[in-house]
Parts: sequence; structure tokens; C-alpha cells
Amino acid sequence: MSKTTANRPIILVTNDDGITAPGLRALVEEMQTLGEVVVVAPDSPQSGMGHAITINKPLRLDKVSYHGESLGYQCSGTPVDCVKIAIDKILHRKPDILVSGINHGSNSSINVIYSGTMSAAMEGAIESIPSIGFSLNNYELNADFVPAQKFAGIIAVNVLKHGLPQGTLLNVNIPKLSEKEIKGIKICRQAIAKWEEEFDERKDPYNRSYYWLTGKFKNYDHGEDTDEWALANGYVSICPVQFDFTAHHAIPFLNNWEL
Amino acid sequence: MSKTTANRPIILVTNDDGITAPGLRALVEEMQTLGEVVVVAPDSPQSGMGHAITINKPLRLDKVSYHGESLGYQCSGTPVDCVKIAIDKILHRKPDILVSGINHGSNSSINVIYSGTMSAAMEGAIESIPSIGFSLNNYELNADFVPAQKFAGIIAVNVLKHGLPQGTLLNVNIPKLSEKEIKGIKICRQAIAKWEEEFDERKDPYNRSYYWLTGKFKNYDHGEDTDEWALANGYVSICPVQFDFTAHHAIPFLNNWEL
Repeated sequence: MSKTTANRPIILVTNDDGITAPGLRALVEEMQTLGEVVVVAPDSPQSGMGHAITINKPLRLDKVSYHGESLGYQCSGTPVDCVKIAIDKILHRKPDILVSGINHGSNSSINVIYSGTMSAAMEGAIESIPSIGFSLNNYELNADFVPAQKFAGIIAVNVLKHGLPQGTLLNVNIPKLSEKEIKGIKICRQAIAKWEEEFDERKDPYNRSYYWLTGKFKNYDHGEDTDEWALANGYVSICPVQFDFTAHHAIPFLNNWEL
Repeated sequence: MSKTTANRPIILVTNDDGITAPGLRALVEEMQTLGEVVVVAPDSPQSGMGHAITINKPLRLDKVSYHGESLGYQCSGTPVDCVKIAIDKILHRKPDILVSGINHGSNSSINVIYSGTMSAAMEGAIESIPSIGFSLNNYELNADFVPAQKFAGIIAVNVLKHGLPQGTLLNVNIPKLSEKEIKGIKICRQAIAKWEEEFDERKDPYNRSYYWLTGKFKNYDHGEDTDEWALANGYVSICPVQFDFTAHHAIPFLNNWEL
């Protein structure tokens, strides 16, 4: 890190696609314009890890050379492990902001639940760190992260300036469009959508079955205030997310039961 | 399954402690009094797996002999994988109810986020199945699951009778007390609490560092309507949980930003 650390925000950057992912590099480059960047990312891809933590085996943590002046570490654990170990063993303090991504694929609507990218951001929020997960809705190998990178900068600047309400993080998704084609940014709610699973059954060379998880995404929500609507209509979506999972509206219903 | 299937509810039972866990057996025994039980559980312990899914490798699914008349399967994946594959490849329909557990340890307050037990139940709710996760706040090797088992029966009967509001599941925690000592059941909200991590750093025989995740649980919530309060005061806690993670209250705050 440069000697200006005292005056610039400390930015913790992580992801779930792993330390070598191009989306991580794009995010780091953008964050280097805003503050002192520390990268702590999984040493291998961790997509779909949800909020998993590693408790049955120990973790490894190795310093790696990373882009520019930034400190870089790879960790053998999950995205959530990366956040926890970064605070306890590398920073020895909380960063001023945590950014996760840029994920190579969507984390809109129900995907927030399965996403390692978003779980890292949620772990940051639990630690009272203003935290944002960024995802680009583009699954192509040579996806262009530049438009997503620019919006990540704009949104991070706002979070550094305004902070976030306690217990809240941001889920940001960027559509697969050029910068010119993107119409703007919409604040959204999580669309009601789900995956319809279909396991692809195959036989191994010993004639035993094995199963690949596949699925079709189904959006059941016709609201124009959802993240899916924003993305389908050319906007970047920002969905505020909370880790109080209580279904408060269901409490009166349950209080009527004879228990 | 017996020939009475048509008249009795189909109950899908899973967990995160794995197919051999005593808490699973206790839950299966209780559910067998209420309906036709199908067990699909991980072939190895999956604690702390959160809402992880397996996308980078295929799954194995093997029939195993299980307690009594119930159909039993072990799956190489996570608790969420177990739910998905049970519906698509074993039941070929949705069960009438899904129960997960009985977890060997607490899933109250913030633990809901890290819990494989609760993620399995959440996956059930996403599939519109009335779903419940049960956890016993007892980490002893020879923990007595009998009181938890009885409360699981009472609560499952109520869910079969009343259903649950769309998008809602139940997080049930049972205190480490005898049946007589338990004062009753409380409907609760998720307490504001978190883990303060401390990684235990050790050296391997080659003098390289490795890290065990450890932590202390901190409850910051003094409310008497929380799950932590209920458990500390001798009650079984039921917290309704939702998978709409939108922080709706934060939307006006974000709409004031200049984006």
C-alpha cells in the first residue's frame, strides 16, 4: 500500500469466481482510483457457495502479487471465509467499504440466496461494513467488464459518501449492454422468481448414475419495481438487501395457532 | 412406503449433519407417526454450508436402508442439493411438507444465515412447500433429542393443518432442557446477534501457517420478542423466515442519491 493510507479509505475487495477472475481485476482497478485496496479472494472458483463457511478443515492464506500496488491474498476457503479472515488476520481492523465481484453472471432476484458474491457482501454488512456485491449479467468467456466497472465506481463513491443504513447491503446487477446502451440506475426490490431444476442424469464408465444440476430461470413477477424488470429494460439494478430474515408479517398468523 | 400413501401426507426429511446423524433419526421417527416419510440427506456432514449448491461437479445419489419403512437416499451434495434432487429424481412431485434437522446445535438468530439445515428448509419454501428447520441447542455428543422430537411433532401437525403463508418457512430452535423444564413455545423475531471471529493460527510440520475458524457468539439484542430471549428463558422459539431479502425500508434512502 502507498503511504497515503491514513487519508484514503481502505477498500476490501473479494469475489466468488476466485483470485484470477477478470471481474475481480476490473473491480480492483476501479477501486484503486478511490482508495487503498486489499484483495482477499478464494484460491479457486466458489460460485454457488451461498453463505458457506469452513468449519471442518483449516484454511490456508497466501500472499500473492496482485495488480498494481494493492495487497493481494488468496484463501483456500469460501467467500465468507475470505471476509472473516481478512478482518482478523490481514487488516486487523474493519475496512471502510467492502466490494465483492464483479461476478461473472447474474445475482438478481432469487440468485442472491445461492451467491457467494452476495454472501461475502452480506458478511461485510453483518460486521457493520458498508458492503456491495456487483454482478454482470453476461456468461460469455470474454465478457466486457468495462461498463460494469464504471457503474461500480459510481455506486461505491455514493456508498463512501452516504454510508448505508445499519443491517443493509447492496446487490448491484449490470445488464449485458454497452455503456451507451445502459439507460441508468434503478433502486429495486428482489423479483419473485426461481429456478426450475432438472437434473441431467448420465452413466459413468462403470454404469453408475451421476447427476448434473441444471435449471431454467422463471420470473413470476410482473412488477416494474423489480431488479428483473430493470435489467430487462436496460437499467443497472440496485436492490438493498438485509440479513434480518424474519418474516415479520407472518407473526400474527402464527400467534393464532394453538401451540 | 406402505400402501396408504394416497391418504397420508408425503413428508420429505433432510438435514445437514448427514444421513447417519441421530437428530435425523429422531425426526424421521416422529414424522413416521404423521405420514409417509422419504429421507434424502447428505452422505457426509454439511454443517455451515449455508445455501450452497453443487455446480462444478456432478452428484451421486444412492438408496440406503433407513429406519422402519421409510425410503432413504444419501446424496453427495449439500442440503440444498438434496432438496432439489429429491423433488426432481425421487418424489417426482412436491412433498406435502419438508422438515430439516434435527440439527445438532443452534440455528437461532444470525446462525440462520450459515445453516445448511435452514437452507434446505428455505429451498423447500422457494418450491412453495411448507417447510420447517429444527435445531437443538445442545452440542454434546450424546445430546438427548427426545424433547426436540416431541416439539417437532407438535409444530409439524400445526403446519400440516394450517399451512404457511407463501414465501415463509419456520426456524424452530429447542433449548437444552428436559421436556418438563420447557415452558412452552414462543413466536419470535430473529435476534440481532453475530459471531466475533478469531482465527486460531497453527503451524504444519513444514512450518507453514494454517487457520481454524473459531468465534464467540455475541447477542446485541435486549428485546424480549427474540429467539435468543425465548431460548434463554426456557421456551422453544419459532421464527418465521422469508427469502425476500429486500430491505424495503432502505429504498427511500437510496432514491435520494444522485445516481
